[in-house]
Amino acid sequence: MSDHGVFSPGWAGTGVDDLVSAAEFVRAMLAVETALARAQAKFGVIPATAAEAIAAVTADAIDIDALAEGVRATANPVVSFVAQLGSAVDPDAAEYVHRGCTSQDVLDSALMLLCRRVLTRIVDDLVRCADALAALAARHRDTVQVGRTLTQHAVPVTFGLKVATWLNLVLDALARCRAARDSTPASLGGAAGTLSAYAEYATLAGAAQGGGVELMDAFAAELDLRAPLVPWHSVRTPIVDVASALAFVGGALGKFAIDVQVLARTEIAEVVEPAAPSRGASSTMPQKHNPVLATLIVTSARQLPSYTGILYASMMSEDERSAGGWHAEWQPLRECLRLAAGAAANAAELAEGLTALPDRMRDNLALTGSAVVSERLNTVLAPMIGKVAAKALLTEVADAAAKSGDDLVVLLCQGLRQRGHSVTEADLGQYASPDHYLGAAPVLVDRTLQRHQAERSAL
Amino acid sequence: MSDHGVFSPGWAGTGVDDLVSAAEFVRAMLAVETALARAQAKFGVIPATAAEAIAAVTADAIDIDALAEGVRATANPVVSFVAQLGSAVDPDAAEYVHRGCTSQDVLDSALMLLCRRVLTRIVDDLVRCADALAALAARHRDTVQVGRTLTQHAVPVTFGLKVATWLNLVLDALARCRAARDSTPASLGGAAGTLSAYAEYATLAGAAQGGGVELMDAFAAELDLRAPLVPWHSVRTPIVDVASALAFVGGALGKFAIDVQVLARTEIAEVVEPAAPSRGASSTMPQKHNPVLATLIVTSARQLPSYTGILYASMMSEDERSAGGWHAEWQPLRECLRLAAGAAANAAELAEGLTALPDRMRDNLALTGSAVVSERLNTVLAPMIGKVAAKALLTEVADAAAKSGDDLVVLLCQGLRQRGHSVTEADLGQYASPDHYLGAAPVLVDRTLQRHQAERSAL
Amino acid sequence: MSDHGVFSPGWAGTGVDDLVSAAEFVRAMLAVETALARAQAKFGVIPATAAEAIAAVTADAIDIDALAEGVRATANPVVSFVAQLGSAVDPDAAEYVHRGCTSQDVLDSALMLLCRRVLTRIVDDLVRCADALAALAARHRDTVQVGRTLTQHAVPVTFGLKVATWLNLVLDALARCRAARDSTPASLGGAAGTLSAYAEYATLAGAAQGGGVELMDAFAAELDLRAPLVPWHSVRTPIVDVASALAFVGGALGKFAIDVQVLARTEIAEVVEPAAPSRGASSTMPQKHNPVLATLIVTSARQLPSYTGILYASMMSEDERSAGGWHAEWQPLRECLRLAAGAAANAAELAEGLTALPDRMRDNLALTGSAVVSERLNTVLAPMIGKVAAKALLTEVADAAAKSGDDLVVLLCQGLRQRGHSVTEADLGQYASPDHYLGAAPVLVDRTLQRHQAERSAL
Amino acid sequence: MSDHGVFSPGWAGTGVDDLVSAAEFVRAMLAVETALARAQAKFGVIPATAAEAIAAVTADAIDIDALAEGVRATANPVVSFVAQLGSAVDPDAAEYVHRGCTSQDVLDSALMLLCRRVLTRIVDDLVRCADALAALAARHRDTVQVGRTLTQHAVPVTFGLKVATWLNLVLDALARCRAARDSTPASLGGAAGTLSAYAEYATLAGAAQGGGVELMDAFAAELDLRAPLVPWHSVRTPIVDVASALAFVGGALGKFAIDVQVLARTEIAEVVEPAAPSRGASSTMPQKHNPVLATLIVTSARQLPSYTGILYASMMSEDERSAGGWHAEWQPLRECLRLAAGAAANAAELAEGLTALPDRMRDNLALTGSAVVSERLNTVLAPMIGKVAAKALLTEVADAAAKSGDDLVVLLCQGLRQRGHSVTEADLGQYASPDHYLGAAPVLVDRTLQRHQAERSAL
Repeated sequence: MSDHGVFSPGWAGTGVDDLVSAAEFVRAMLAVETALARAQAKFGVIPATAAEAIAAVTADAIDIDALAEGVRATANPVVSFVAQLGSAVDPDAAEYVHRGCTSQDVLDSALMLLCRRVLTRIVDDLVRCADALAALAARHRDTVQVGRTLTQHAVPVTFGLKVATWLNLVLDALARCRAARDSTPASLGGAAGTLSAYAEYATLAGAAQGGGVELMDAFAAELDLRAPLVPWHSVRTPIVDVASALAFVGGALGKFAIDVQVLARTEIAEVVEPAAPSRGASSTMPQKHNPVLATLIVTSARQLPSYTGILYASMMSEDERSAGGWHAEWQPLRECLRLAAGAAANAAELAEGLTALPDRMRDNLALTGSAVVSERLNTVLAPMIGKVAAKALLTEVADAAAKSGDDLVVLLCQGLRQRGHSVTEADLGQYASPDHYLGAAPVLVDRTLQRHQAERSAL
Repeated sequence: MSDHGVFSPGWAGTGVDDLVSAAEFVRAMLAVETALARAQAKFGVIPATAAEAIAAVTADAIDIDALAEGVRATANPVVSFVAQLGSAVDPDAAEYVHRGCTSQDVLDSALMLLCRRVLTRIVDDLVRCADALAALAARHRDTVQVGRTLTQHAVPVTFGLKVATWLNLVLDALARCRAARDSTPASLGGAAGTLSAYAEYATLAGAAQGGGVELMDAFAAELDLRAPLVPWHSVRTPIVDVASALAFVGGALGKFAIDVQVLARTEIAEVVEPAAPSRGASSTMPQKHNPVLATLIVTSARQLPSYTGILYASMMSEDERSAGGWHAEWQPLRECLRLAAGAAANAAELAEGLTALPDRMRDNLALTGSAVVSERLNTVLAPMIGKVAAKALLTEVADAAAKSGDDLVVLLCQGLRQRGHSVTEADLGQYASPDHYLGAAPVLVDRTLQRHQAERSAL
Repeated sequence: MSDHGVFSPGWAGTGVDDLVSAAEFVRAMLAVETALARAQAKFGVIPATAAEAIAAVTADAIDIDALAEGVRATANPVVSFVAQLGSAVDPDAAEYVHRGCTSQDVLDSALMLLCRRVLTRIVDDLVRCADALAALAARHRDTVQVGRTLTQHAVPVTFGLKVATWLNLVLDALARCRAARDSTPASLGGAAGTLSAYAEYATLAGAAQGGGVELMDAFAAELDLRAPLVPWHSVRTPIVDVASALAFVGGALGKFAIDVQVLARTEIAEVVEPAAPSRGASSTMPQKHNPVLATLIVTSARQLPSYTGILYASMMSEDERSAGGWHAEWQPLRECLRLAAGAAANAAELAEGLTALPDRMRDNLALTGSAVVSERLNTVLAPMIGKVAAKALLTEVADAAAKSGDDLVVLLCQGLRQRGHSVTEADLGQYASPDHYLGAAPVLVDRTLQRHQAERSAL
Repeated sequence: MSDHGVFSPGWAGTGVDDLVSAAEFVRAMLAVETALARAQAKFGVIPATAAEAIAAVTADAIDIDALAEGVRATANPVVSFVAQLGSAVDPDAAEYVHRGCTSQDVLDSALMLLCRRVLTRIVDDLVRCADALAALAARHRDTVQVGRTLTQHAVPVTFGLKVATWLNLVLDALARCRAARDSTPASLGGAAGTLSAYAEYATLAGAAQGGGVELMDAFAAELDLRAPLVPWHSVRTPIVDVASALAFVGGALGKFAIDVQVLARTEIAEVVEPAAPSRGASSTMPQKHNPVLATLIVTSARQLPSYTGILYASMMSEDERSAGGWHAEWQPLRECLRLAAGAAANAAELAEGLTALPDRMRDNLALTGSAVVSERLNTVLAPMIGKVAAKALLTEVADAAAKSGDDLVVLLCQGLRQRGHSVTEADLGQYASPDHYLGAAPVLVDRTLQRHQAERSAL
């Protein structure tokens, strides 16, 4: 593990760091130089043997600490990387390394390879998460739970509907990540985005083609990345497209996680995180089972928006290549990838193992008694005594019930009778069961499951 | 102007504030209550006369300062708004105001109306901007200019290519804003997103329909907003979809503006902003013509990413309605709308009036002499004396030329002859003209103009 | 109210907006021009009558909408402001308006006046808040409550200690706001920070002094602001000093508020917000009493860090005056002032009226039974059976107790006896009362109250 | 290098990463456990031999990858760390490891050790930077340079004054970093901040003291950290105090760097960065000497405000220990430390080697001719023909001069004569030299140097 993760609970232990380690970055840069050489060889700009010599270099030929030293000297690792690559092949091939190329072509293309790889992993984990949530929503389509707004009991919902909320967000995230993954472009422009040195080398080699946009296409094809319309050195759309998808992942899974945290509170206890050896243990309190997966996800979600902001800000970078804006993208982008991928891995495990406790849901719902359907009683009373009077009476009666512990329906009937309305507790009692005030909740679950089904089969 | 804009150069004077003023917000909330009433009337849930009474209320019936007071009491303006609306219609109709509804339905739907309106304005201004940039790129397709990287002269480009960079960003922004505008959804869910009170009122009214998802559809149709699959009280996708489009606008136009600022520097002076009475004046320095439009755009671009971050962070909000996350969206979203729309208005005017000075471009290019094509000389020398030796010699010679003021080609020939290569200044001189080292720049301009054409005609 | 606050629950209805309205900004700019004129008059640079003519102008002489128009033309409101001010005095005095001055001197000094005013208000509200929390902490110094970590019951604490946590944060915020308020400097530099036009006018007037740093001092004294060592047009320390104090206020009060939200949850119900007419009402659910004040504070706290980030980023602004960085400060700074001041006002009211429910605290504590002191049992057992074995046994027994509902001490004794230790329930039972496992909690409350006392009397 | 830095030009190659590597974090945690054990031994709570056994453990006893695995299981590395530490000492001593302690005590104290260390390094580099800037400011106290506002030539300044601007910022940063470094507190609270288990172990050991605030003091003394008034698990003042100092460093040095970038532009070329082998080289353009150090600093400065925002947001964390807020601090804080320390190291080198080119400054100043003192001419003319007329005439004449290339003073005299004023070019010409329109610039430099002197000798 290149950075271990001891400072980074958002992704530690999920393995996603390995996808964007310094070593993987070196491998990606090697892949980029190989792709360029092969594309140029295809057009006869350089010898095929040189291209294959370059392709044969492996990551252990590159000294990563020397790369980091080079970063300070030239503000990017590519100058040192190219020098090391040149030394790693025989002198004949060395002449053909990085021909016509510029640091930004290598670095941006390598970053896009890392992005695509991590996005693929995220897509996989979001699919797992979506499938698990769909099963959970289906199972609890009709499980009654209290709806909470501004921290207070509001009206009944179903746990299935709450899960459907999470599922819709995960499906939204999935769509954004797939789109981002499928549009990561290769980067090829040369020193200032005109492709001029590529053209020059092609001309000098007597090649009819291979120095213009056709080289850009061939290069992208070698990397299995999208061919860009024009070089994007100073058009940072691809970076923020990835970043906004990752920020979305953070927000979507963060919503799931923070709801789990609320529901897992000792006093609420409506859900339980999946158990695993030593998970959620405290260093000193033997009784503790902390909702650790949710905590790890929340941690990621708290960081992602700010990192993404740095990347949006880098769009505003001066000249054909900026002096600082471009350089401020790499680590924040890498961290976004790690945080979002870590969150996706943790969310998949959380969704697959989350246990709902319907009895606790029912117990908690009972805490508020009939007051939890006071909105419904209001709809019944409004036509009877007027909307304003109905709300005033119910507010008064709900307060009295909360204080005395008496049943709200009983108090309400008293209040109505005092006002001259003949109404029995049975009349109103029929409206008092939370189970019969669920509105369209089951239908909304079904709609979400249909969406899941449709998007799942389109994968 | 509701907030005047004296603190806000990013949008002051562009008129966009009028689109999201407190008064417009009130009008939007009235439109929402009207749409709900009409949708319910359509299904027979409430009388059509009541719906039309509600529709007849105008914004002057609502005391905005009282709304603001209400915000402090109930954490949103809708409770007070509904009370005022109830008082503004006759008592019979008052019974039918806001039936089954919840604050978030009204507020979120009203926000979406404002978003759609501002996005429409932004789209218009981006189209103006794109058209002007396309004309400018075409005009300067072959105008040679120095390319600059890390603040230094790099290799030649064309001004047309630089404009094409801006144009591609504007087209990317346009696509994102159109997509965001066309998908703004209505919000309808009731107290906790189950539609239960809507259903209850429909049942009590004996209506066969009008309390479930069909009401959601009818309501959205009344507002000309997209009908959501499910209520999105706690699924904040629509907010961040708008926000990310707006952040993109800031970044895209910020890139345009910061380039203009560099090019307008006194020492560079390659472009001039459009003149207008008193524009760019200083309070004390009569000679000053500040690049004001670019400055106004940069101001917006510096703020947008952080505001957007707040909105992404609000995705992670607990429960069926959060106690703070939702409330933290309104002003940042409004400010994003103003800043992005202000930037678009200013960018359209800037693009339409920007003057390029090709002579100054040529003068500046000449400052670096032949060194500006040293990359090209490198490609020529590399096959002759080896890549590493070529770069070393050119680095040495370029330094000497910069110090002495001598011509780089002359010094280079001397160096080569000292190393035993017979080469004349004429041999190398043919490579020394910046005009012939433009690579694919004109082709890349053409590609961008074709893109503009295609996306323009698809509008 | 200049911006009404319908979009801004963080400060709506608290009156703080009136302190930073556009009209107040105009008044502050008038005060700045007056201070300059009087300072110049003092040195004989301009006639005293001119200074008093300027001082006599009131805010209604200035058309705020015209100012906003001017912002678009010149990127700041001062050029238009000075023109209007010139027209508002007689032609003789008009000659002496804004002599030697630059827009940034006026705008930055005016902003500092607004900052000082709002910080004074914040300090007052934080003092109220601190006093109320100190009383609450003293009252509940020994009120036992469960401590919660990672959402789960951990070990007992006292409610007084929790309040002391809030109080320490409020005192930290108070110290930072007082320091910031007391160091707000006047800004005077002239066009590029050399004071040159001031010097020129002094020379032309034949004044021996009044064009150099002594003018800076006299000007600051007129405004009752700190005299800066040197002009700070491009040294933005004063802005971020204020901003970081405001961000701290948000974080400090946000911690208070989010704890109140947790404790006010229907299932927990250990505290109740102060009641007020219609506060916390829902538009549809009569039983609702939302923790509104806490929600308003959380809303502010969610926004402040991002706004502050914009201000820190503006420190990096090029040249003697930047083209965009400076301009991006005004609205974010104003919004920080409003949000922090709104939070302070709401927090003062919340602290003064917060009700604690010790019985509910005791009930909730009982939910976890003896497991809440399992850490203590661990300390007792470790010397007896070894640390690792003790923790393993307690973990096992705590799980069994949670599942079966049996008493943890009973199960623990069984487990120990099975392992051959002779131990009675009475032996262990003496350690099982939460009331006797409070550590230094009361002492820590006392320390905090002493701090409050000391800092209070130093005010 | 633990994270190599290939993604992080802001600190790569400066060595600061070594101060906050995973290995150093482990060493810091060992130091914390040692300090606790020794403090407890001092009071007789545990045997001194046990404390020394713990003190003898070195970092190689801890498997860092296993720590990272542990992070995922328990959301922090301490549970695994303590287990490994227990295994690394003999069984007798193992009983006394981490007695009464909690993960947050270890982790927060260890973080503070890292903060103090990095802040010490930053202070050293800021002192170097300040000293170099002071020397530069003194040398160029009277070197005339054009002042630039909104990218345009404004009025003359001195290069010394510009350097004094940077120096004031560096001194401000220094003061904030020293204050932060000197107040980093130890963290000791136990499971929920009551110190209860510490007290329990002291009681069980029969120690008269050593389980309360006196343990906190002794522990802090062992670590040479400040003793806190009360535990700060949920009072995150120490974190944001460090973070705001680091954000300030970024802004202060970012201002220095961005000015260097402007001045190093090919067309401006008023300063040159210090040379070093291969520094500023391009991978393809032999002539390039990029302002790399400035770029590295700008890169850090673009990131720091957003990271700091995450830390301010973590202040708002629920309960005695939050489920996510605390965990979101570690990596952002570490990255802030690295970025600020990297910037300080790079800025020290930049300041020490920066070369100013006074001839180029004079050449650039000449580009604007007499227009650069049009403000001064305005002060002269205003009393003669009235302020408004003066500005109108000068604006007209400055425009004409810019277009025709004629001398502004000549045109101005013509204009005045046409208006009937008898004025000669000599009359006005005396005001036309930039060298005599420097206002208080030299005095302001002196003031800054005195400040430097005073704060330097107080170190």
